[in-house]
Amino acid sequence: MKQAIAELDPEHNQFERFVTHLFRELGYKTRWNVIVQGEVIEHQIDSLLEKGGRKLLIECKHHINPHRLTGLGTVLTTWAVLDDVRKGPNPYNNIWLVNNTKFSNHAKKYSAGKKMKLIGWNFPKGGSLPELIEKTQAYPANIISMSAKERKIIMSNNILLVKELASCRPDSLSKKTGLRKSRAEELIVKAKTLLRA
Amino acid sequence: MKQAIAELDPEHNQFERFVTHLFRELGYKTRWNVIVQGEVIEHQIDSLLEKGGRKLLIECKHHINPHRLTGLGTVLTTWAVLDDVRKGPNPYNNIWLVNNTKFSNHAKKYSAGKKMKLIGWNFPKGGSLPELIEKTQAYPANIISMSAKERKIIMSNNILLVKELASCRPDSLSKKTGLRKSRAEELIVKAKTLLRA
Repeated sequence: MKQAIAELDPEHNQFERFVTHLFRELGYKTRWNVIVQGEVIEHQIDSLLEKGGRKLLIECKHHINPHRLTGLGTVLTTWAVLDDVRKGPNPYNNIWLVNNTKFSNHAKKYSAGKKMKLIGWNFPKGGSLPELIEKTQAYPANIISMSAKERKIIMSNNILLVKELASCRPDSLSKKTGLRKSRAEELIVKAKTLLRA
Repeated sequence: MKQAIAELDPEHNQFERFVTHLFRELGYKTRWNVIVQGEVIEHQIDSLLEKGGRKLLIECKHHINPHRLTGLGTVLTTWAVLDDVRKGPNPYNNIWLVNNTKFSNHAKKYSAGKKMKLIGWNFPKGGSLPELIEKTQAYPANIISMSAKERKIIMSNNILLVKELASCRPDSLSKKTGLRKSRAEELIVKAKTLLRA
């Protein structure tokens, strides 16, 4: 699964969209890729979350190289965004930074001091990215073996999760994607099998 | 001169050191490459300036490609550094961000809102990098034609400016750098000639 997430296509913001779908599965009202007015400037935010009156900003940092850290510079930037938004017309409660690798110790220390949440591959214990995924079975659709072309067309149809693929009907999936109906059915069965495993 | 500044060696932080020497020529007390304790974390600051009771942090952004902009992300990070330092034990009055190219419009708008000074190639009018250099004749030493090896050894001896080269004595320059005395003398004469031009 780590490999599949590393391979999400940055050109199509698949990691950012995947994370948004994950949070929807976790019960949040989500909006993807939104402009939010701060005190002095507008910010392009990867995702907005809302649950029980709490409003959160999500920033995503996708690394294709799984050994790449997210460092202090990124969390400083993230905090400056939150600070400007908080002082703006639509205050949010906090900002969370989600990556698919690790954070540097400096990044963790600063974020802790700022009460800013980081979510990474092994962090935090009990609430890391793979743990949130397992909890909701929100696996990325590309862990199912398919061709690069199929993956691209399926994910560009906003099917980012295995469970979203599993819930498709073969004829509508075929119609949306141009895949043969038999192949669409095959992929749906694979998705259902994986969820039952 | 623009070319010479673009070609300063990033591996040896020559741009950061050049900028520090420039500010010294402008009458600031300077310290290069200092760790400053903020509220929640320590920050590595390119340069600290002091003049008339004002204490400033300097962050440098050197672009080898002269067409590269410094964007919003960098100024957000820079502001987060200032904010953390201001809340720490050694408050500073402001932070200035110096680059050798241009800033994006978003970067300018945000910095203006935060009253943070940007210094770039054409910005601000009257106080841009080349204007500050002309005012003090603080030309980078590598505008004098010399071999890459000579440039490296001279600049690594903390001779970043033409005027610093011009004020050397041939024998001590030769001793410090290992250049033949006649070549050292030649370079010093070139430097003096350039300053009189």
